[in-house]
Amino acid sequence: MRLVALAGGTGASKLLRGLLPLLDDPRDLTIVVNTGDDTELWGLHISPDLDSVCYTLSGLGDVRRGWGLRDETFHALEHMARYGEPTWFGLGDRDLATHIYRTRLIRAGRTLSEVTALVAAGLGVPPRVLPMSDDPVRTRVLGPDGWLGFQEYFVREKAAIEVRAVEYTGAEGAAAAPGVAASLREADAVIVCPSNPVTSIGPILSVAEIAAALADTAAPVIAVSPIVGGDAVSGPAGRLMASRGLPVSPAGVARAYAPWLDTLVLDERDAAAAGSVRAEGARPVTAATLMVDAAAETALARSLLEALR
Amino acid sequence: MRLVALAGGTGASKLLRGLLPLLDDPRDLTIVVNTGDDTELWGLHISPDLDSVCYTLSGLGDVRRGWGLRDETFHALEHMARYGEPTWFGLGDRDLATHIYRTRLIRAGRTLSEVTALVAAGLGVPPRVLPMSDDPVRTRVLGPDGWLGFQEYFVREKAAIEVRAVEYTGAEGAAAAPGVAASLREADAVIVCPSNPVTSIGPILSVAEIAAALADTAAPVIAVSPIVGGDAVSGPAGRLMASRGLPVSPAGVARAYAPWLDTLVLDERDAAAAGSVRAEGARPVTAATLMVDAAAETALARSLLEALR
Repeated sequence: MRLVALAGGTGASKLLRGLLPLLDDPRDLTIVVNTGDDTELWGLHISPDLDSVCYTLSGLGDVRRGWGLRDETFHALEHMARYGEPTWFGLGDRDLATHIYRTRLIRAGRTLSEVTALVAAGLGVPPRVLPMSDDPVRTRVLGPDGWLGFQEYFVREKAAIEVRAVEYTGAEGAAAAPGVAASLREADAVIVCPSNPVTSIGPILSVAEIAAALADTAAPVIAVSPIVGGDAVSGPAGRLMASRGLPVSPAGVARAYAPWLDTLVLDERDAAAAGSVRAEGARPVTAATLMVDAAAETALARSLLEALR
Repeated sequence: MRLVALAGGTGASKLLRGLLPLLDDPRDLTIVVNTGDDTELWGLHISPDLDSVCYTLSGLGDVRRGWGLRDETFHALEHMARYGEPTWFGLGDRDLATHIYRTRLIRAGRTLSEVTALVAAGLGVPPRVLPMSDDPVRTRVLGPDGWLGFQEYFVREKAAIEVRAVEYTGAEGAAAAPGVAASLREADAVIVCPSNPVTSIGPILSVAEIAAALADTAAPVIAVSPIVGGDAVSGPAGRLMASRGLPVSPAGVARAYAPWLDTLVLDERDAAAAGSVRAEGARPVTAATLMVDAAAETALARSLLEALR
């Protein structure tokens, strides 16, 4: 079964980690990753979601902290403070190697797709990992004092400011990365991971070729709601959905993906919302969606595969 | 007293650390540092001698190891090995911050002089630290299998191969960095640190403006011999001098600096070589030159200042 997953960072990485052991061949899975929150810091090209996915699926990720690499230290960051460089973004020492490597290759003319394949191979990530686009698409958030890059909003401001608008700079004219549109068209099923619909999946959908491939594909599309009990499991998805006029509910998630969504997996505790999901045109399926440990990750992945059968 | 020091890495850093407490105002000292062994690794601009001087004089250097920063770790290096990048150059995590910072500023169009001033200020280095040139001058070594960059020879090959020639690529046409020639002309004394005459001081002298300023200056020029007891105190200076046809002795050092050297400080155990130094046209002064601890560093610096009186 050829699976394609649309992925943001943490929630996506956990679901995909749970999914891997259930696949006959992990190379049948293609992961299309958000690059809207890529940023440049200290002159380095940072791709937080690509790294989250690769670190998690290589088994090198810090499971407890939920981001970055295991046994991480922050000595470069400490020293960088002496030079007055920004230190609000927690770049770890091991993690820095990835950013330095990526930056060198991109400056040498390699595409983000090519670099991502090399990073994934270096780390031993079994599935195929693709950035959504090799062109820079950047999520920006309009706060009370003007536009911010996504990481400025999310990390520096701790997502604690009011959001008036979200845009995907560069989306117009951005091409899908090689393999993305074809993999969606040829898929047997498409999984939309439990990621932020506005700032994780939204940027992926902002690439016209990807939206078109999703509209065209004959494959069933199944999404997992990141909204449980009226708010996001983690992060600012709730407030961002509200800022877009979407209900902060499984129905709001279904509406965000309405043109092509077939099935929405919502949490058991939201079972009462099944009707509102159906009203948005999607088939509701309930499951335990809180991935509190490895067993829960795999159980959710299994529910997904069952819903696809 | 306006002092100018010509400096390589370790030996120079130790002497200058010993000198600092003897100065009325550390800002009266200008240090002109070799950049011939600068290199690019992982896409980062590395300036080993500039960093040695700045790390040592800021008190942040690793005194026991003799290079790099205190409390250093090598986690980025470990992780970088996964990507197949070269790992023979021991870039520490704290140290990486300096290289990342320098690289960002140079790519943004700042000169190495400007960056060096910012690094020195960030670390709290009291004297003025200048690269010899803002233009790339690179020491290359001809080994049995062809030309190598200096770090390839010194670190990767551990200086264990035969050297057939040394050249300073880019020296022709390289300008002295701003302030270098003027500081030499206006100095009250010039100190040539106990650094490798071929690959630490040699590149500095390969910049025509600097050689001319040394020939012109009215200031006395005093050097400390890095050769003691017929070999270098550390590193491959002996073999490199031999490859240039220079005697591996204090007299060989005096000959390397002959056009403008006034005084050579040689080690007490080489007192018998005083006549041969005089024959090269320099005044010999003996002192304890092995800087085995902080007291010895300051004692040697004091001997130097006394010889200048």
